[in-house]
Amino acid sequence: MVQVGIIGGTGYVGAELLRLLSNHNKVKISAVSSTSYSGKTISSIYPNFYGINEIVYENEDEVIEKSDLIFLGLPSGLSESIVEKAVKKNKICIDMGADFRFKSETAYKKWYKKDFEIMDLHKKSVYGLPELNRKYIKEAKIIGNPGCYATSVELALLPLISGGFIEEKGIIADCKSGVTGSGRSLKEGSHFVNCNESFSAYKVANHRHTPEIEENLSSVSKKDVKLTFIPHLIPINRGILSTVYTTPKDKIDMEKLHEDYCKFYKAEPFVKVLPLGEVAKINNVRLSNYCHISLHYDEENNKLVIISCLDNMVKGSAGQGIQNMNIVLGFDEKEGLNAVPAIF
Amino acid sequence: MVQVGIIGGTGYVGAELLRLLSNHNKVKISAVSSTSYSGKTISSIYPNFYGINEIVYENEDEVIEKSDLIFLGLPSGLSESIVEKAVKKNKICIDMGADFRFKSETAYKKWYKKDFEIMDLHKKSVYGLPELNRKYIKEAKIIGNPGCYATSVELALLPLISGGFIEEKGIIADCKSGVTGSGRSLKEGSHFVNCNESFSAYKVANHRHTPEIEENLSSVSKKDVKLTFIPHLIPINRGILSTVYTTPKDKIDMEKLHEDYCKFYKAEPFVKVLPLGEVAKINNVRLSNYCHISLHYDEENNKLVIISCLDNMVKGSAGQGIQNMNIVLGFDEKEGLNAVPAIF
Amino acid sequence: MVQVGIIGGTGYVGAELLRLLSNHNKVKISAVSSTSYSGKTISSIYPNFYGINEIVYENEDEVIEKSDLIFLGLPSGLSESIVEKAVKKNKICIDMGADFRFKSETAYKKWYKKDFEIMDLHKKSVYGLPELNRKYIKEAKIIGNPGCYATSVELALLPLISGGFIEEKGIIADCKSGVTGSGRSLKEGSHFVNCNESFSAYKVANHRHTPEIEENLSSVSKKDVKLTFIPHLIPINRGILSTVYTTPKDKIDMEKLHEDYCKFYKAEPFVKVLPLGEVAKINNVRLSNYCHISLHYDEENNKLVIISCLDNMVKGSAGQGIQNMNIVLGFDEKEGLNAVPAIF
Amino acid sequence: MVQVGIIGGTGYVGAELLRLLSNHNKVKISAVSSTSYSGKTISSIYPNFYGINEIVYENEDEVIEKSDLIFLGLPSGLSESIVEKAVKKNKICIDMGADFRFKSETAYKKWYKKDFEIMDLHKKSVYGLPELNRKYIKEAKIIGNPGCYATSVELALLPLISGGFIEEKGIIADCKSGVTGSGRSLKEGSHFVNCNESFSAYKVANHRHTPEIEENLSSVSKKDVKLTFIPHLIPINRGILSTVYTTPKDKIDMEKLHEDYCKFYKAEPFVKVLPLGEVAKINNVRLSNYCHISLHYDEENNKLVIISCLDNMVKGSAGQGIQNMNIVLGFDEKEGLNAVPAIF
Repeated sequence: MVQVGIIGGTGYVGAELLRLLSNHNKVKISAVSSTSYSGKTISSIYPNFYGINEIVYENEDEVIEKSDLIFLGLPSGLSESIVEKAVKKNKICIDMGADFRFKSETAYKKWYKKDFEIMDLHKKSVYGLPELNRKYIKEAKIIGNPGCYATSVELALLPLISGGFIEEKGIIADCKSGVTGSGRSLKEGSHFVNCNESFSAYKVANHRHTPEIEENLSSVSKKDVKLTFIPHLIPINRGILSTVYTTPKDKIDMEKLHEDYCKFYKAEPFVKVLPLGEVAKINNVRLSNYCHISLHYDEENNKLVIISCLDNMVKGSAGQGIQNMNIVLGFDEKEGLNAVPAIF
Repeated sequence: MVQVGIIGGTGYVGAELLRLLSNHNKVKISAVSSTSYSGKTISSIYPNFYGINEIVYENEDEVIEKSDLIFLGLPSGLSESIVEKAVKKNKICIDMGADFRFKSETAYKKWYKKDFEIMDLHKKSVYGLPELNRKYIKEAKIIGNPGCYATSVELALLPLISGGFIEEKGIIADCKSGVTGSGRSLKEGSHFVNCNESFSAYKVANHRHTPEIEENLSSVSKKDVKLTFIPHLIPINRGILSTVYTTPKDKIDMEKLHEDYCKFYKAEPFVKVLPLGEVAKINNVRLSNYCHISLHYDEENNKLVIISCLDNMVKGSAGQGIQNMNIVLGFDEKEGLNAVPAIF
Repeated sequence: MVQVGIIGGTGYVGAELLRLLSNHNKVKISAVSSTSYSGKTISSIYPNFYGINEIVYENEDEVIEKSDLIFLGLPSGLSESIVEKAVKKNKICIDMGADFRFKSETAYKKWYKKDFEIMDLHKKSVYGLPELNRKYIKEAKIIGNPGCYATSVELALLPLISGGFIEEKGIIADCKSGVTGSGRSLKEGSHFVNCNESFSAYKVANHRHTPEIEENLSSVSKKDVKLTFIPHLIPINRGILSTVYTTPKDKIDMEKLHEDYCKFYKAEPFVKVLPLGEVAKINNVRLSNYCHISLHYDEENNKLVIISCLDNMVKGSAGQGIQNMNIVLGFDEKEGLNAVPAIF
Repeated sequence: MVQVGIIGGTGYVGAELLRLLSNHNKVKISAVSSTSYSGKTISSIYPNFYGINEIVYENEDEVIEKSDLIFLGLPSGLSESIVEKAVKKNKICIDMGADFRFKSETAYKKWYKKDFEIMDLHKKSVYGLPELNRKYIKEAKIIGNPGCYATSVELALLPLISGGFIEEKGIIADCKSGVTGSGRSLKEGSHFVNCNESFSAYKVANHRHTPEIEENLSSVSKKDVKLTFIPHLIPINRGILSTVYTTPKDKIDMEKLHEDYCKFYKAEPFVKVLPLGEVAKINNVRLSNYCHISLHYDEENNKLVIISCLDNMVKGSAGQGIQNMNIVLGFDEKEGLNAVPAIF
């Protein structure tokens, strides 16, 4: 059994990693850290683990010591120094935050207000979208696990961008996410009364996943991909639905395009291209690592619309982290991720 | 007191009209009809009226007879013959469905699969968006009350289209509505378990409000306005939020644009343009006739985004119907519509 | 117009008072205070008031000065000194918190950990349940507005207790409330993700409304009424449903009992006793000042079950406060409270 | 691999069985039947299975033929003849409906309006509550899987009834369930707009799980256990919380009682007795086979309150069915049921 640790195990990402890893047959949770809850059991924060997992939060160094592979579930900007320590001891790191998602220091600096302090680590790191970078992930020591929205939009667009079918500029991603996306800490925006029976946009055309999407799609396109991205908050716990509006360079034959998508994702265990005429819905992917994609064409206005759905806590975060772990450790990629979506 | 009747008083629109008219000081509910519940009390279907309004459903003819003004809350295609009867008796009709929303028979026929059978009625009818047609509404005998999505998108775009500031083609309206929008009849899509904790698009680029929006904005623009419109279902009862993406013809000065919007809607009692930096949210307009509009600019991609929110059952339907009634009857336009939005 | 002020106008009760008073024809909001938001507009906290009510928060003294009647929406324990000041200036006070709900200092002290500091005020104050104390409210200078759960349980039981029909001991009140009941301040229990798709009990057999209910029902009964009261949190914004289990002293004739209830509440504008066979539901009273009551008998086990529903923010708080205001000022008791419940 | 079939695979119970069995390592789904969807794939009804399980609905006889063990997910009253056929062919049957839950034909007949038509089958059948009947389940050919509410209330009370600690009469079970409990068929009560933002009781003191609970607890007690049971509908998808009010025969020492509960359930893999002071909540057991129980004492009124929570679709139905299957087939009881509850 490979020993796996979690640094930052009190946030939603840490908790979801613990939940999913409990059903993984090839790894064992070695240790979990928390700065504020050190010495307490996990079930004192998340009573769903009561009587099932009574592991006690330790400190970072213990996690590094006891683990072969480490997940970091920390706020942006805190991962570099820990990753450095871990990598020196020859541990593999999967950073669930944004610190290792960027190749471009300029973009990272602009959006996250922080330099790459240990440049060497960033050179070694790989952006962990398996559908894009599987072969590099296999060899990686440091994996930057993608953002939830970024995963959703990139999976929607990869076949189009890769095929050069659409205008690279002027893409619109109108995205909608459940409230777990804003985390465990209390804030006005996730107070029940403020979001229940409501719906709103936030960080309009100003969300940090924008440059992440642009960098990755541009690297595929070899052209400068630009998008307007607006996230919205849905009063549900889990799930992201992205409605992505694109302008085809030529008239689209939908049968043909559908075939292209199916072919593109044929070998992918977790991406399902729906039959033409079907519409992707959040409740068909909840609690699973699957991403559903549906294709739609407004012929009169020549707009090609791609809808993609995933569970922001699974394929958009912890599940994708485990998928990356399976790849880097040479396991079956679906190990621990076999759950069928919970339709209700 | 003016006598007001409702034909089709068992659906959500009829019920909401009854709820709102209960607080109107200048009119009296004369009679309400229902084909399937004739002889029963309203509170037998809607127990919120229990002990408050124990009116008994009658038939259409009785409603026409007893009323000076009649609201029709019927499925599309059923209003013409009733309106003809009523107009002959010199009654004013406000049709809450789609039958009198179109000038173009071609568009109506294409989307609703039905001819204009009594052409003369359509010549006399007015599209009841007060912010667009107030002066015609004042004199109207037949008012076609706008669709909920159409109201939301048209109010978002009127100042832009009217000013000629944006490309008339390629507009994208990504709209989201609560479940009351799909009505009282039981269907898969509004079964609790199917929409709770989910989110999905429907009628992708194929919703009947598309031609309605296009016709009205084109009439303002004098050019052919075209949009891609995708509605989505939010697991809430009430409210529509529309995120409308447009391409400015020239670079936008947001301070100036905000001023233009404020000036455009200055005299409007129910349209509120939020300060720059604020974002329109559904829970700020619920249970009221207000529409909130916020303006956003993605300068890098030259996309101007307008977000508009309203309550689909009030400004998107029954409330707007009452506003039209107030206009045509010469009452204060806010009479019966003074409710402050219920923030929770 | 009577000048009405609100001290503590930033909490949910203050906001709801403002919303409801906006449609009151006999009073005018004179001033609203806030300690932390002094100088800011109400719409900066509650954007539903944007463009409708742009009143600016002032301080307590200004509110007292400018008002004939004052609502206090403060945390428990803070009202006495302000009420003293106001009463000296001959203002009427309606305290929305718990400070003036008790006759018994012992009970108050035990549950609220505070003495009656200005005993004289408590002697002058009246418990503001109109269905129980209308004649005293008419003459009151200080009104203690009842708790939301207490209103719900007392209205359910008043006819039974008053008729001496049930065992005074061993009553069980299993109550369920929406999340507005726990207020505007951020806390774990009202974080969206923690209550959405969940349901739980809290303060099990230890909620402060217990002694309030017991004191008032005992005063009616002349015997010592005792109940086990357990509140639960429903993932909705508004509404309380109480399921109250009682043991009849004699076999119950339900027709007769129903008649007794109807007679008891006959003159009450806001209490509706449903026909036998109907069941009270929260969505039939939302956004209104009505309380629905339904009666059920488990003959085999001789348990009489009363279900009562009301909106915790209206009849359970702000609406009842306005009802009390109407009584004490000699207005029509329904003034400003005519809203028909919003079924959706 | 044992071949497992499902008769009635289009309802929620069938779908949940399929979802859970997908992760079971010792059985294989042999066939699934549907009368109305025969010939169609499962994913045409439940798109969450799209690309994962494309099994095609067959007819009953094929299911019987191909399976060693058969789950029946049928409306009450339809199982007897199928079970007879299957048992003759030496197949094991687990009936998810009510037809084999009763020993007493009188009770069954009174509440389900149907005789035991093949008496011999009922003599052979076992009530499948593992915590009560594990040793009989091991040898059973026919298992009547318990009702969801019944499981919740019985697990709450077993240690008390078994210890003779409480009055056997006058028990009150105030239960609350999510909407999946009312099934996949469209009805007024599960129309989104009718239950969202609402809460209500139904079948007041008249629910069919009442006699089931009474029969099983009486069999443990050797006395006649009687309860008043009122179910309520929570606007959530999954989960039951039961608040059970009992009257202790003697004063309760809570430390001692807690020890008794822990001891009683010590060997049980799925029942967790929470530490004193904790309160059972639905979001700590969702999507899992666990049942959480918390104990509370209202000393002043001598009421002992037990709160139990479980997921109505898992421990309350499909999960318990699989637990029974594991027992009867001699597997590890937790096989396929290892999922940690999904806290969000």
